[in-house]
Amino acid sequence: MRVLSGIQPSGALHLGNYFGAMRQHIELQHQYEALYFIANYHTLTSVQDPEQLVQLTRDVALDYLAMGLDPEKACLFRQSDIPEVTELTWILATVTGKGLLERAHSYKDKTARGISPSMGLFCYPILMAADILIYRSNAVPVGKDQVQHIEMTQDMAGHFNTIYGDVLVRPEPLLGEAPVVPGIDGQKMSKSYGNTIELFGAPKATRKRIMAIVTDSTPVEDPKDPETCNVFALLKLLAPAEELPEWAQRYRAGGMGYGDAKKRVYELYEEQFGTRREARAAWAARPDDVEDILRAGARKARAIAEPVMEDVRAACGIVTGGRAPV
Amino acid sequence: MRVLSGIQPSGALHLGNYFGAMRQHIELQHQYEALYFIANYHTLTSVQDPEQLVQLTRDVALDYLAMGLDPEKACLFRQSDIPEVTELTWILATVTGKGLLERAHSYKDKTARGISPSMGLFCYPILMAADILIYRSNAVPVGKDQVQHIEMTQDMAGHFNTIYGDVLVRPEPLLGEAPVVPGIDGQKMSKSYGNTIELFGAPKATRKRIMAIVTDSTPVEDPKDPETCNVFALLKLLAPAEELPEWAQRYRAGGMGYGDAKKRVYELYEEQFGTRREARAAWAARPDDVEDILRAGARKARAIAEPVMEDVRAACGIVTGGRAPV
Repeated sequence: MRVLSGIQPSGALHLGNYFGAMRQHIELQHQYEALYFIANYHTLTSVQDPEQLVQLTRDVALDYLAMGLDPEKACLFRQSDIPEVTELTWILATVTGKGLLERAHSYKDKTARGISPSMGLFCYPILMAADILIYRSNAVPVGKDQVQHIEMTQDMAGHFNTIYGDVLVRPEPLLGEAPVVPGIDGQKMSKSYGNTIELFGAPKATRKRIMAIVTDSTPVEDPKDPETCNVFALLKLLAPAEELPEWAQRYRAGGMGYGDAKKRVYELYEEQFGTRREARAAWAARPDDVEDILRAGARKARAIAEPVMEDVRAACGIVTGGRAPV
Repeated sequence: MRVLSGIQPSGALHLGNYFGAMRQHIELQHQYEALYFIANYHTLTSVQDPEQLVQLTRDVALDYLAMGLDPEKACLFRQSDIPEVTELTWILATVTGKGLLERAHSYKDKTARGISPSMGLFCYPILMAADILIYRSNAVPVGKDQVQHIEMTQDMAGHFNTIYGDVLVRPEPLLGEAPVVPGIDGQKMSKSYGNTIELFGAPKATRKRIMAIVTDSTPVEDPKDPETCNVFALLKLLAPAEELPEWAQRYRAGGMGYGDAKKRVYELYEEQFGTRREARAAWAARPDDVEDILRAGARKARAIAEPVMEDVRAACGIVTGGRAPV
């Protein structure tokens, strides 16, 4: 089974990315053929500063390698090293109704939030479908809020196959645990809300952010409800399972300040991510090796994509002949 | 000065295509650096039969070569041999507002005619802009009804350059004479109206179509108005200039049946296009030579496109590294 996912290099990765996707990505490399691409074409819809995009693209590779992605097991590559994905995007566009795109949640959400819609934003699900279909991916690890994108991909594959024959493989969503990760303000953790705790933030700054997590103002001596507490939600993600009942008891008993729980969150954060800082710095010091990993990944990915594109072109009558390098 | 135009392989070329575009294309090869591509990616929005698309793509090449396109002078190639054009399409999409596309005449016209809009139809002007901009084309020969597409291309180039610096060249429309070519029913000649006279139609069938051109029912003996007559409109395009006053006089004098004028239209058609049938058959008998011409054209086009794409990628921070063949 081939599993594929894309990671947007649209900002420093944070605990929301980790528990929502990255952790699962790293686990899946042991079970399946795993392809992970750094979605720099997608990110052009939000990052329009070239230096920043180059840096963020590199940072995603460093973050994944530091957190345990094994390039011998999983294939890590840049989206833009497989430019055929944009060719498939165009071909899928010709078999996809405009209405399907108008109904995309993510597009409706963004326009509702007042983001003026670019065509890139509007066409985003077609590029995403091409990303998935070009590798004949069987499964795509997603959170619940992304299931619609997989359904749209299934629709596009279906339209293509109905017209041109059975060429594209219909992918299935691979739903992970998808825990809710609250940001420091209690909303879903997201770069757009400015409420993130970064995976590789500087220790002092990260501690400050964790200590600033919003809580209610129950006095220290009173009992507290762990289930409605943002700090406890992070403890649930970070602490060993056996430690949680103790914290729940301390919450309910009263006499515990939220500061105690926050300090423990920071300790656990340092244990799990702080210890990876060195590994990340080591990778950052070897840019050529990182580049080699990405290129090797691209070669592997392209070896899968090219025959699929040949099938797609043949199916729809797109003749090529002069593609040999200049 | 570099001139570029695309030809849709969406059906047999007809007199409307010839006088509206092809004639000018062939003339321009003597004055400018001319690039003409067979727009097979575009045609996917209307032709969804692979064998038909392959055949139509080939037919456009044969038609152009038979009518005098000189592959030593003009560069003739298949759009799909420069797949980077779809990569530029995506990148342009990220700097283009959805509103610009909603205002495209051709999109509004097609939806008004009840054609259910695919994303390919909707995004068509972006692919067209990429076609133009990827070769840093200075001028695009168009009819009046296509000027908006060039304006949209100017807009997209402007948006890109505003964000990323002065990378893309703003093209200008090159307005030809753009005569109105009536179809046999008097509407604008167009494949979609089923009223065409094909460039390389079989003689008998073409004669029959010309004799069926719609006229008014003025009796033979009465005077007729040449300026409102579809047959006379075709005479104006086909006959030598010195012959026209004579025909105008015969119209106005009365005593001439429309059949006489139609017969003359057919004679002139045979002189100008019938004589090219042999040349076309000769090219059709040399498919390898035609393929060589298209490949040589693609190599030339790619040598122009690739450095432009390098500039585009560098400008927006799209890193590549692993694009070497598998």
